[in-house]
Amino acid sequence: MNSVFEALKPYLDRMMALKAALVLFEWDDATLAPEKAGELTEKVIGTLSGEYFGAVNNETVKELAEKCAGEEGLSEAEAGQVRELLEEISKLDAIPQKEYQEFSQLTAGAVRIWTKAKADNDFDAFAPTLEKVIDFQKRFAAYRAKEGQKKYDVMLNDFEPGFSMELLDEFFGVIKKEIVPLLKAVQESKVEIPNDFLTGDFTDEQQEEIGRFIAEYVGFDFSKGVMAVSAHPFTTNLHNRDVRITTHYGKNLDSSLFSIIHETGHALYELGVRDDLTQTLVGEGASMGMHESQSRFFENILGRNRSFWVPVYAKLQKAFPDNLGNISLDDFVRAVNKATPGFIRTEADELTYSLHVLIRYELEKDLIEGDLQVKDLPEAWADKYEEYLGIRPENVREGVLQDIHWSQGSFGYFPSYALGSAFGAQMYAYMKKEMDVDKLLEEGKISVIRDYLKEHIHQYGKLKKSREILKEMTGEDFHAQYYVDYLKEKYGELYRLNV
Amino acid sequence: MNSVFEALKPYLDRMMALKAALVLFEWDDATLAPEKAGELTEKVIGTLSGEYFGAVNNETVKELAEKCAGEEGLSEAEAGQVRELLEEISKLDAIPQKEYQEFSQLTAGAVRIWTKAKADNDFDAFAPTLEKVIDFQKRFAAYRAKEGQKKYDVMLNDFEPGFSMELLDEFFGVIKKEIVPLLKAVQESKVEIPNDFLTGDFTDEQQEEIGRFIAEYVGFDFSKGVMAVSAHPFTTNLHNRDVRITTHYGKNLDSSLFSIIHETGHALYELGVRDDLTQTLVGEGASMGMHESQSRFFENILGRNRSFWVPVYAKLQKAFPDNLGNISLDDFVRAVNKATPGFIRTEADELTYSLHVLIRYELEKDLIEGDLQVKDLPEAWADKYEEYLGIRPENVREGVLQDIHWSQGSFGYFPSYALGSAFGAQMYAYMKKEMDVDKLLEEGKISVIRDYLKEHIHQYGKLKKSREILKEMTGEDFHAQYYVDYLKEKYGELYRLNV
Repeated sequence: MNSVFEALKPYLDRMMALKAALVLFEWDDATLAPEKAGELTEKVIGTLSGEYFGAVNNETVKELAEKCAGEEGLSEAEAGQVRELLEEISKLDAIPQKEYQEFSQLTAGAVRIWTKAKADNDFDAFAPTLEKVIDFQKRFAAYRAKEGQKKYDVMLNDFEPGFSMELLDEFFGVIKKEIVPLLKAVQESKVEIPNDFLTGDFTDEQQEEIGRFIAEYVGFDFSKGVMAVSAHPFTTNLHNRDVRITTHYGKNLDSSLFSIIHETGHALYELGVRDDLTQTLVGEGASMGMHESQSRFFENILGRNRSFWVPVYAKLQKAFPDNLGNISLDDFVRAVNKATPGFIRTEADELTYSLHVLIRYELEKDLIEGDLQVKDLPEAWADKYEEYLGIRPENVREGVLQDIHWSQGSFGYFPSYALGSAFGAQMYAYMKKEMDVDKLLEEGKISVIRDYLKEHIHQYGKLKKSREILKEMTGEDFHAQYYVDYLKEKYGELYRLNV
Repeated sequence: MNSVFEALKPYLDRMMALKAALVLFEWDDATLAPEKAGELTEKVIGTLSGEYFGAVNNETVKELAEKCAGEEGLSEAEAGQVRELLEEISKLDAIPQKEYQEFSQLTAGAVRIWTKAKADNDFDAFAPTLEKVIDFQKRFAAYRAKEGQKKYDVMLNDFEPGFSMELLDEFFGVIKKEIVPLLKAVQESKVEIPNDFLTGDFTDEQQEEIGRFIAEYVGFDFSKGVMAVSAHPFTTNLHNRDVRITTHYGKNLDSSLFSIIHETGHALYELGVRDDLTQTLVGEGASMGMHESQSRFFENILGRNRSFWVPVYAKLQKAFPDNLGNISLDDFVRAVNKATPGFIRTEADELTYSLHVLIRYELEKDLIEGDLQVKDLPEAWADKYEEYLGIRPENVREGVLQDIHWSQGSFGYFPSYALGSAFGAQMYAYMKKEMDVDKLLEEGKISVIRDYLKEHIHQYGKLKKSREILKEMTGEDFHAQYYVDYLKEKYGELYRLNV
């Protein structure tokens, strides 16, 4: 180990340990903690967040990091950690520790307030908290903005380094121009796709059993991971030998199934990070968009592909004999790809999904950079759903209160979901030239695809940025057109359109 | 808040947050964490332990604490925290931080090594680790010993302040003198107590359902607590609104049932701590012995009392109809009180239990103060079982490897189990003068007993020491005779002896 880096190492270990503790509290809170624990546990989380802040942002660490940055002999992993640390320091340095701590406590409580407001279908109960969260985030972004940089660009950059409103306006411009009319054509098509057989009264145990099977089939390693239940499915990790996913069970057999495949995609990313990078500042996925590219790749591009189900559909039929016993593989695959405008982003099909994200992007931009007020959000939300999806939510539970993100203070996160789909489509276009993806899936050789993604993406953790990964993998910078082409081809065929 | 104390408060919050994180990792590791997570998670735990050590044991904190100790205007809770902190500082101050951290990492790994060695019935696989643990503990005790103080006394004092080998030699002397012959008389008695109906093939779900019912009946509040499964049942807590118990399920219906009542006793203690004390250094039970007094009071003195089951035995019969459907309440109660010398401490009946502890006390004393070597432990263990219980373990899994404690570095802990039973018996003798315990139990008014214990014990957390609590509650210092009398009366009646 480089000797200057060696002096920094204990400080890095401290950061990682505090971060791991915060991750574990978050996991525990979402999956297990008793109902009345919240308020007192928030104090702990607030204090640990403050400790993390202090561990990153202090003079000794800054000096050591700057000294390391001038070193020649650092390994790739060491240099990556120093780079990330300096970025993190410059991020936090701009924010007074007290405000950061207040904000952590606020968001810990905000999630509970949002949960209750959503259950009660009561936007007003959440609005004052949301206003505070936005105030903090605008203030933090202003503290952090480089000269002339817009606040929302600062936020976007946290989730997707290398992307800005300029690039995203262009990306969502293409989506708006191409996908809104494509959806219209789909809706006007005469093709009927029955999917009522996906609904039923399933037990949690029944869904869990097949869910665990599918997670393992896709590649989730239960000796290095855990699956649990939470209100909102997510993936988290302590390191590359402890990666955790959650799901929830309901009345549609495809809902938990594809949510598990989605989270397994995230999990594979974290399980695939190199041993010398895990438990370091570069030991996680490159960006939110790159992470979503993996989860959505497994969920949609592979998981909703007919070939994926060839080796395992019989097993699925056996798990749900009353519903799928008499349904052909083709009918099943058509059903899980049916495009239907709906209110809920997380339940959306591949086609309408990007429009849900488009709406959030436009609203966030307007909240942060424009003059949209929190009190006017429910109306603005409903207007956009009517415009792009042709449906108007009747209540806030299925409208503006559906997502957890804003209560956690995550603004600029949503675009990553659509970017992830678009990254995935670009990778897929390239991979099809390298290997026969359908044949591999049909032969149950999903591990070949998994290994390929591990080799080109997962292993590097945060050593490379998303555009760099794309360029090295596909030979091109990011292009939205692959995504639009993918959707047009898939839905054109499914609904027999002339696109 | 006192202004000197106010300056100390953020440091105290930091300690409590780090401690809470360590508690959560411990819980997670025992109940959920994936098999291969261990090694990397241990690094996190090691770092956080070091942080905790540094948070307690640093010059600023020491100065502030000493300044507080000289203050007049501290509240009872504030003064208690300062006292505990100074004790903790003097404890840690004596140990070099690096050794403390090495020890934490060692014990985190030691538990896994012990678990495997136990499963493999292989003492040699654990012996080198145990030797290291003992070396650390002897060294730490030597660092900490006051002039002329014995190392094992230092250890005992960690779990039971105010108790020493002198007092315990006397206590275990009475046990040896009175209980060994009592057990002999029981074994020679002609009374047959059938208990085969307690054994069967029960599902985990079946046991869990009645277990949750009983926990709630005894007073466990599931809105402030969680119940899970682990290899070795335990109770832990983050604060008085997040108290967690574990159990395990097997082939004896009484095993998980009474283990749940036992852990609920521990949990009630933590749930009953005053709001102004929780999340502080005085926010937990007074001592291990006082904790065990509560768990064993609920498990044995109440839980194995016929009156306890009067309101709920029908429910239990319904949960296990094949086994208990035709068994009378009297036969059930006799069965769960049957005294049978066995190898396993945690499965022991009330009568033989103290002899299991006596054995461990004598062995620990000999390991720490005498010349017993780790390599000779299995033999020494077996000899003592033969001497006091009349049975000789054939393998180390059921012998010296059965308990987790030594792998965690806990020496001086075992005596607290017997002390707890003895504290409970002394309390019970006094309580029976204050209230009709049997009648309350028969009428399902267990809350009256719970409230009484909360008022006299639980609410105070660590503000009082165990002997102080006993004195204030019963008007007397600790006396072993109550315990012996309780066992003689109970088992004399059960086995129709002349004692």
